[in-house]
Amino acid sequence: MEFTIRQIATMLGGEVQGDEHGKINMLAKIQDAKPGQLAFLANPKYESFIYTTQATAVIVKKDFQPKKDINATLILVDNPYSSFTALLEEYHKIVSFQKSGVEQPSFIGENSKTGKSIYRGAFSYIGSGCDIGDNVKIYPHVYVGDNVSIGNNTILHANVKLYSGTKVGHNCEIHAGTVIGSDGFGFAPQQDGTYKAIPQLGNVILEDNVSIGANSVIDCATMFGDSTIIHNGVKLDNLIQIAHNVEIGKNTVMAAQVGVSGSTKIGDNCVVAGQVGIAGHIVIANKTTVAGKTGVSKTVREEGQRLMGTLGFDVKDYFKSYALFKKLPLLDERLRDLEKKLNGHSNGNTAD
Amino acid sequence: MEFTIRQIATMLGGEVQGDEHGKINMLAKIQDAKPGQLAFLANPKYESFIYTTQATAVIVKKDFQPKKDINATLILVDNPYSSFTALLEEYHKIVSFQKSGVEQPSFIGENSKTGKSIYRGAFSYIGSGCDIGDNVKIYPHVYVGDNVSIGNNTILHANVKLYSGTKVGHNCEIHAGTVIGSDGFGFAPQQDGTYKAIPQLGNVILEDNVSIGANSVIDCATMFGDSTIIHNGVKLDNLIQIAHNVEIGKNTVMAAQVGVSGSTKIGDNCVVAGQVGIAGHIVIANKTTVAGKTGVSKTVREEGQRLMGTLGFDVKDYFKSYALFKKLPLLDERLRDLEKKLNGHSNGNTAD
Amino acid sequence: MEFTIRQIATMLGGEVQGDEHGKINMLAKIQDAKPGQLAFLANPKYESFIYTTQATAVIVKKDFQPKKDINATLILVDNPYSSFTALLEEYHKIVSFQKSGVEQPSFIGENSKTGKSIYRGAFSYIGSGCDIGDNVKIYPHVYVGDNVSIGNNTILHANVKLYSGTKVGHNCEIHAGTVIGSDGFGFAPQQDGTYKAIPQLGNVILEDNVSIGANSVIDCATMFGDSTIIHNGVKLDNLIQIAHNVEIGKNTVMAAQVGVSGSTKIGDNCVVAGQVGIAGHIVIANKTTVAGKTGVSKTVREEGQRLMGTLGFDVKDYFKSYALFKKLPLLDERLRDLEKKLNGHSNGNTAD
Repeated sequence: MEFTIRQIATMLGGEVQGDEHGKINMLAKIQDAKPGQLAFLANPKYESFIYTTQATAVIVKKDFQPKKDINATLILVDNPYSSFTALLEEYHKIVSFQKSGVEQPSFIGENSKTGKSIYRGAFSYIGSGCDIGDNVKIYPHVYVGDNVSIGNNTILHANVKLYSGTKVGHNCEIHAGTVIGSDGFGFAPQQDGTYKAIPQLGNVILEDNVSIGANSVIDCATMFGDSTIIHNGVKLDNLIQIAHNVEIGKNTVMAAQVGVSGSTKIGDNCVVAGQVGIAGHIVIANKTTVAGKTGVSKTVREEGQRLMGTLGFDVKDYFKSYALFKKLPLLDERLRDLEKKLNGHSNGNTAD
Repeated sequence: MEFTIRQIATMLGGEVQGDEHGKINMLAKIQDAKPGQLAFLANPKYESFIYTTQATAVIVKKDFQPKKDINATLILVDNPYSSFTALLEEYHKIVSFQKSGVEQPSFIGENSKTGKSIYRGAFSYIGSGCDIGDNVKIYPHVYVGDNVSIGNNTILHANVKLYSGTKVGHNCEIHAGTVIGSDGFGFAPQQDGTYKAIPQLGNVILEDNVSIGANSVIDCATMFGDSTIIHNGVKLDNLIQIAHNVEIGKNTVMAAQVGVSGSTKIGDNCVVAGQVGIAGHIVIANKTTVAGKTGVSKTVREEGQRLMGTLGFDVKDYFKSYALFKKLPLLDERLRDLEKKLNGHSNGNTAD
Repeated sequence: MEFTIRQIATMLGGEVQGDEHGKINMLAKIQDAKPGQLAFLANPKYESFIYTTQATAVIVKKDFQPKKDINATLILVDNPYSSFTALLEEYHKIVSFQKSGVEQPSFIGENSKTGKSIYRGAFSYIGSGCDIGDNVKIYPHVYVGDNVSIGNNTILHANVKLYSGTKVGHNCEIHAGTVIGSDGFGFAPQQDGTYKAIPQLGNVILEDNVSIGANSVIDCATMFGDSTIIHNGVKLDNLIQIAHNVEIGKNTVMAAQVGVSGSTKIGDNCVVAGQVGIAGHIVIANKTTVAGKTGVSKTVREEGQRLMGTLGFDVKDYFKSYALFKKLPLLDERLRDLEKKLNGHSNGNTAD
């Protein structure tokens, strides 16, 4: 890929100041850029770099007034940062869509069909009876079980594992090592203290525009015909655990290492921070925000609450309690003082 | 697979009411069932669906008295739910045992032997000197190192990784992406602030009837000849960390994202909830129950305790303390009131 | 591998007492050792085993005085434990370096070059434009994207996944299932409640002597040209999450299931215990120690602090507060007593 400065300025609807014939083959930060690269200046605190940068061109704000000579060609735009981001996105699309065709060896079972412009990496495995859409990218070492369906434009990174019966929508992206559809954790205790596995016969449904990070796990539903459901637009980070029969509402976002226990239903547009644990068989209202490491143990009915703590309650109240938790030794001492005054002695023991 | 209603009723020891020649090819929930499918009615709250269901047959309780006409054939049994579950289990067995034979390409090293009726998926890798039992299912992308032994009827799902020297018993099931036998985390600090790896030369032993979820990790023991041991009937969920030289007693159950530090010995029939952390070099008595997110930092000697909290103590006491933690600002205020009465002023600072 | 007792004594600079021609083919614990094996006695509490062991030879301390007859040949050294460990290390090197050559099928893209004495396991995948050093071990099912560089003597265990653009130094070891370079978790909220993915175009750099456990994840930096950086000598355990743009200082050690949020910079020689969560966009000073399960929410400026608690503060203070947290019901009662004496009634409510 190589573009002239003129071509890039045209894409961005910007104006060129300097040599418009320079060739650009990469994007870079202004302080690191080398000849042939394009940088941007948005934050005034980086202005000094524009006078020394080796970049062939720099995107700047329309009204930028240089204080010294600049070697680079300038591209003048309304918003340098968003223009640069737009170029990055284009670049990203080109890079991620350049993978296509079928590398060998790869495996595909009977009665499975794949759409147009598909990429199937070497050592990828697709079982029987699968239905895979157009422009799907299946990276090396991906495992797709039997009777799986995958919508258009979905990307499965290296070594994603979809158990049989999983349904993935359009425009989803799943990162390396994530497992979808493994058995829910269901064991019936027996009289003799052992456990017997309860067959897990449901599946997982990911609707459209779902993104999942690396090495996460989503278990299938228990009953035949039931599904663990991740609704439209949900974004899950790395190393997340979603148990059997959970339902996550649309556009909910969860940071890394969150765990959601079985049969819990989480609303739309929730934001759950890292390492949160959510109990099983509860309901979380829409637009709930949960602070990092919180344990949510009860149903949350009112929308828009912000929770914190091992048995999550309102985040402001938590901070007040926690400030006093840190001062408990002082509280204890104050109490002992009062007891001495009133009783002549203290009823309390020391902390240790 | 297709059965007549008569065949199914015979399997279940049930009685048929209606056309016994109807053909069943799938199990389904009563509210979703389609022609050719078999459903069940156990919970009276779903009774209305039996009058509208498209199911070809429905399993009901012996003494069920319909209030309206029913199109479906009925199979009358003592316990509809357990009859249905029994069918699900049969179905599950058939499905999971239908995989057999060796898909290509797959790899097997020198001096490795495999038993009868084995399944080896495409891209599965078995090292040298392995001894693999009968009816073992090795899904695609499984990695089995050298000198590994695997008992009969064990299932390794896609991409399970067993390091060299691992021993797995009979009737085990390990879900996708789990790693068994990786190096324990052992580094000796050096004078210059760097760390030197301590070679990890032990292995992992899983006894019989052990189940492990997806993307979990069990490290090998440090010393040559030592083992990290998971005893008979243990059930571990997803994303669990078991460090080097840990021993987990029989029939102990751990939910997702639990972490157990090195050299800890956990008793039999314990129940450990999600995201619990257990310190290293301690012992946990049999039948201990640990609530979600608890940190267990000390040896637990007495059997049958229930622990909770960051430095886990009795769960009822924890709830009492936590209720007051939430009221700390109020406690502080009450204390300040008393101080004013006694001293004319308060000795405390506010929480912020 | 087989050595005479004489050869081993010479390696260790030790003295032989007994038959120096005995042949040793394995190392073992003194209580388990069999003929042909070498054990050691360091801890006096195991002394009784030396009189019954079947080991062909035992390493003992120079001044060891047997109380009974011993069948085994003795090798006398200054420090039996460290001598034994030295042998284990030698053994480990031999075992781990015996893998070499290229197993088939394996995949390597265009313009990728590999050094001398490399091992590439079956079903391993190397993309285009990669530069891989000497003595590198790439186990089965490893995925290496495009334009990745890997230094000499680095070991990638089964199924490690390196996204395109990752840079790994010399003498690194990465355990099975770990993902390096997956997308950072960056989504821009849109007016309609949905999220739009921000392209993640940076990479990950692991410097030299970095060790990473199994099933961990390190995300790439967001901006093109930026890197998530793991400095020289860092040791990370299993199931760890390192977010985009994080920097971890040299010789810092982190135990299992730790999570570090985006753009945080952690100092040198820190020690972070299991299940700790570290907030985003903060700085942690050198030599900080963080206790298990702690939440670090703010920048830590002073070196050498020890933190604990959900909003981490000094570990000693935490223990004092926690001891009183357990006694909160008692504090509440004492307060109520005082209130009754002063006011004739209590202002407090009970805990429930």
